[in-house]
Amino acid sequence: MNISELKNSMDPKNVGREMYALITELYPICRSITGNGFRQTMEILRRYIPLQIHEVPSGTKVFDWEVPKEWNIKDAWVKNSKGEKIIDFQKSNLHVLNYSTPVKKTVSLKELKEHLFTLPDHPDWIPYKTSYYRENWGFCLSHQQFLTLGDGEYEVSIDSTLESGCLTYGELYLQGEEENEILISCHACHPSLANDNLSGVSLATFLAKQISSGSHRYAYRFLFIPGTIGAITWLAINEEKTAKIKHGLVLTGVGDSGKITYKKSRRGDSDIDRAATHVLKHSGEPHEIIDFHPYGYDERQYCSPGFNLPVGRLSRTPYGKYPEYHTSKDNLGLVHSEFLEDSFYKVLAILNVLENNRSYLNLNSKCEPQLGKRGLYSSIGANELALLWALNYSDGRHDLLGIAEKAEVGFNSVQEAAALLSKHNLLQEYRETDLI
Amino acid sequence: MNISELKNSMDPKNVGREMYALITELYPICRSITGNGFRQTMEILRRYIPLQIHEVPSGTKVFDWEVPKEWNIKDAWVKNSKGEKIIDFQKSNLHVLNYSTPVKKTVSLKELKEHLFTLPDHPDWIPYKTSYYRENWGFCLSHQQFLTLGDGEYEVSIDSTLESGCLTYGELYLQGEEENEILISCHACHPSLANDNLSGVSLATFLAKQISSGSHRYAYRFLFIPGTIGAITWLAINEEKTAKIKHGLVLTGVGDSGKITYKKSRRGDSDIDRAATHVLKHSGEPHEIIDFHPYGYDERQYCSPGFNLPVGRLSRTPYGKYPEYHTSKDNLGLVHSEFLEDSFYKVLAILNVLENNRSYLNLNSKCEPQLGKRGLYSSIGANELALLWALNYSDGRHDLLGIAEKAEVGFNSVQEAAALLSKHNLLQEYRETDLI
Amino acid sequence: MNISELKNSMDPKNVGREMYALITELYPICRSITGNGFRQTMEILRRYIPLQIHEVPSGTKVFDWEVPKEWNIKDAWVKNSKGEKIIDFQKSNLHVLNYSTPVKKTVSLKELKEHLFTLPDHPDWIPYKTSYYRENWGFCLSHQQFLTLGDGEYEVSIDSTLESGCLTYGELYLQGEEENEILISCHACHPSLANDNLSGVSLATFLAKQISSGSHRYAYRFLFIPGTIGAITWLAINEEKTAKIKHGLVLTGVGDSGKITYKKSRRGDSDIDRAATHVLKHSGEPHEIIDFHPYGYDERQYCSPGFNLPVGRLSRTPYGKYPEYHTSKDNLGLVHSEFLEDSFYKVLAILNVLENNRSYLNLNSKCEPQLGKRGLYSSIGANELALLWALNYSDGRHDLLGIAEKAEVGFNSVQEAAALLSKHNLLQEYRETDLI
Repeated sequence: MNISELKNSMDPKNVGREMYALITELYPICRSITGNGFRQTMEILRRYIPLQIHEVPSGTKVFDWEVPKEWNIKDAWVKNSKGEKIIDFQKSNLHVLNYSTPVKKTVSLKELKEHLFTLPDHPDWIPYKTSYYRENWGFCLSHQQFLTLGDGEYEVSIDSTLESGCLTYGELYLQGEEENEILISCHACHPSLANDNLSGVSLATFLAKQISSGSHRYAYRFLFIPGTIGAITWLAINEEKTAKIKHGLVLTGVGDSGKITYKKSRRGDSDIDRAATHVLKHSGEPHEIIDFHPYGYDERQYCSPGFNLPVGRLSRTPYGKYPEYHTSKDNLGLVHSEFLEDSFYKVLAILNVLENNRSYLNLNSKCEPQLGKRGLYSSIGANELALLWALNYSDGRHDLLGIAEKAEVGFNSVQEAAALLSKHNLLQEYRETDLI
Repeated sequence: MNISELKNSMDPKNVGREMYALITELYPICRSITGNGFRQTMEILRRYIPLQIHEVPSGTKVFDWEVPKEWNIKDAWVKNSKGEKIIDFQKSNLHVLNYSTPVKKTVSLKELKEHLFTLPDHPDWIPYKTSYYRENWGFCLSHQQFLTLGDGEYEVSIDSTLESGCLTYGELYLQGEEENEILISCHACHPSLANDNLSGVSLATFLAKQISSGSHRYAYRFLFIPGTIGAITWLAINEEKTAKIKHGLVLTGVGDSGKITYKKSRRGDSDIDRAATHVLKHSGEPHEIIDFHPYGYDERQYCSPGFNLPVGRLSRTPYGKYPEYHTSKDNLGLVHSEFLEDSFYKVLAILNVLENNRSYLNLNSKCEPQLGKRGLYSSIGANELALLWALNYSDGRHDLLGIAEKAEVGFNSVQEAAALLSKHNLLQEYRETDLI
Repeated sequence: MNISELKNSMDPKNVGREMYALITELYPICRSITGNGFRQTMEILRRYIPLQIHEVPSGTKVFDWEVPKEWNIKDAWVKNSKGEKIIDFQKSNLHVLNYSTPVKKTVSLKELKEHLFTLPDHPDWIPYKTSYYRENWGFCLSHQQFLTLGDGEYEVSIDSTLESGCLTYGELYLQGEEENEILISCHACHPSLANDNLSGVSLATFLAKQISSGSHRYAYRFLFIPGTIGAITWLAINEEKTAKIKHGLVLTGVGDSGKITYKKSRRGDSDIDRAATHVLKHSGEPHEIIDFHPYGYDERQYCSPGFNLPVGRLSRTPYGKYPEYHTSKDNLGLVHSEFLEDSFYKVLAILNVLENNRSYLNLNSKCEPQLGKRGLYSSIGANELALLWALNYSDGRHDLLGIAEKAEVGFNSVQEAAALLSKHNLLQEYRETDLI
């Protein structure tokens, strides 16, 4: 794959707009970590990429966990004593506590309040709440509305099922020139939340589409999974496949206006960490690189000490650092096609570095080769400097990315220099295994 | 030992006041590197802790040195021609050059002046001077008084003895759960100097008293020794015991109002260095961490290259950095119970880290364990974060202190997390020897 | 050798003046990478030092290169249609494109212009241009003059030869107490350029003269070579000798008023890098230390990955960072005896560190030795501190330079301390081979 060529061949305006359009289509669906909302989402993605859908039965042991019962919901509401629907799932799927058990009864205001969730600090917003692993029912509403609730009886109805079924996830494996893989993972289990969840889903979808359109060195594995339990389930079922994962990215929260943030893998100095750092540094745009910490998204599982995979995370504003996080305000107004597109190309640029990062040996390591007789000598300009850097440090201990870091230049110039020198038989690619 | 429990069970006001009271009692005694002043000091300490008293004969070879003759003094004075005592040992034992040979004669002002020591920059203060290894006699006085001395004859009398005898030191060994030791060392050879000497003696005494009142993981060895020659003597006699010393602190100058200063061991990254750095950093109070340098107090001997023990030094204002150092102004007004107490608790906190710092193995290292089913899951709060840090980094390469450093949180929260996880069989302590 | 003694025995004023005088004598000669100008230069240097002159035949293969034809020139000029010499080699040898092929013909202004080189940004200056590896002819002139050239015919004459001959270089090997060598290399191939070229030639000459006047630990090898091809030629012919090169310096651009700049060897932490950094840091004067990069002067060849010799470069303002670089303004007004002299002594100081940097073992490593009984104890002063540093860190893992770095003091004080301690049998020199 030559991702940079792919990039040049794409209409940048379209990618951002298409990503946004997909988010818009997915937004209304009531997803959860299991159930038909998740399945429906995967079916929509299959219009773009040939996802394989996996169904893992409830009760399946996955390391310390087990796959939970499947949750599905048709409707939910609360009616006041006048019979008026004052909370209505049809208006926003955030109104129901995700994974609520079925309920249909009349309750006092006092009992009702034990099942209501609000955000006093943002009285207009509806919170997003879940209760996956403790059976409960509940409703989420604005604090403003909560304050208007008068005494009296309320009729509550949650037409849900929580029964043995399956956990669903989507997977796309794209064969590469090598068996080694790059893992791209995103969670797709949140209902109407645009940035946290759908932005990553959309980016991963269009990325898969692009990559599948050309050849590429690495195999790529895309996972569209429910958060936490999905990563744990995949790792438990596919433990033997993890040895092939050489680089990985968790994608989420990539559509807001904040600066790009890369969270390093637990290893801290893996190639994905170096490549992402390099790309963001040389982007000339505001960005942040943060160290690994053991909370966040599914990098928590990929980077658990028993796996310790080289998987980082790319986001814009990190989760929990923007007030709209996990509320009704993480809506279609929070994400923008221009930021989605910017995130998309930064991911492509990172993959481009990984795809093209190789080590070379200088075949003429004693003194400089005579560049002039090969037509490679101009006067000292940026290109000749890159040639000299590539020659001097192609000593078996520096890959091209390491040389670019030493020279403090963009990866592409060193990559081009190495290609030119290889053509003139001054460099020869080598792999560590060559030395064994 | 659970030092933190000890700390909670103590009345903080009392410790500082008791430390100060002990200093007050010890202050008038004329101590030196040998002799009855040192013995009398040890006897007073034995009212608090069951010190073992060692007597090492003069002339004993201790590495490159030998134990000097024992010095004792009854009285010393200078009389002017009118027979008036103008310098009187009874008023301040600093008036006599420590280790002065006996003398009784009449001298001219000129000859007298060759044996007088003053501080021109602090004309009111009496300096503290010694002549341990070169036989001499002399008197110390204020520069102000020195300037008033008129011509004429003076009668000088030093009623001292410098004869074969012993070097005395006090030692207290407290058995621990392990054979490995923590060394606490202070010099106790200075006469009426409160901060340089007695503050460390007092802190070490009350520390020993506290530690002996409970169980503890490490054995503790407390040394109350004459500076330099005492440390050399102990090391020479006990060379085979040094292998058990895993951590150590030299305590001195811990009663003044300056900020706490920790001087690292020669190793620079030993556990005592890490623990002291951690405690001071998380104290939220001004402090300073300085690198090892080969001068100072008895850490010079413990950290000589042939031993290179992991022994640091805790002081407040470092020696030589306060003008009262080695003068009559290092008196009972320079030290305060509140600073003594603050130093005492900082030492306890450092020992608490060492006592509780262990390594664990995550027994569920593939993906996170399900905290919720064990009642360990709240919402993300400080405690749950500590659980996640402890789980993720209990990989055999990080001890609890290392995890606290990585998480940038106090040691206690990680320690508590590890205890909780151990109770739930998610972590298991391991020692490096387990891997051998 | 005791270079510091040498330094004291020299008249500092004279060295700078003599260096400048030599530059003045060499300045008018039209040097190139081969030919009689280079030979004449070597003959002048032989009045100062017993240089051995090597002649390497044209066509000799030297790694990827081959020794070029020899170039010699007698005269060159351009006449206008009135027969007036408007460009005259006799006025400045920079007027001719260095390595111009012979030419004698009448050309139009248009054709002439294809062979003219100017500096539009500095319209008064003549540029220095070469065409070593592509046969061409040309003239360099001020842009101001270039603008006055009218239409019409011009007679051009370059009375040069470019024929099979030799590449010449000068070499001086000074035997040392050890076989290990220090390499001092400078390029001597530039015509009338004072700072870039002659300043380094002059410094190296007087350095060789000084060093040859006394004994010294290392062997010294001085190379006066044409840039690039000279270093390549020497390395190709003498490959087996490079194993003895333990330290090296490329000297050039050492006469201007800019601050001293040291460019590290490719290794980055070799002794020459540490010594130069130490000397410049402790000089108390402005200076710059820069990392290795694979362009510049002959360090490019010495530090090519197949050799990776510990060779750094000492300059004042780095090449290309002063506007006069490679122009007629790099003349006798750009260099000054005081800066030449300052550079000279800084090089001597660096060599002094290398000559005297050794490792010692503390023969009394358990506790401190008793300095007092050996008369080494004063009160704590700078000297006693140096003794303590030298004792504490003479542990087989620190050389004297490393101890000086740790103690943050000048090398000399630690060196003197080690000498004193050795005299008292407290330290013993050792070499790494002693441990094998």
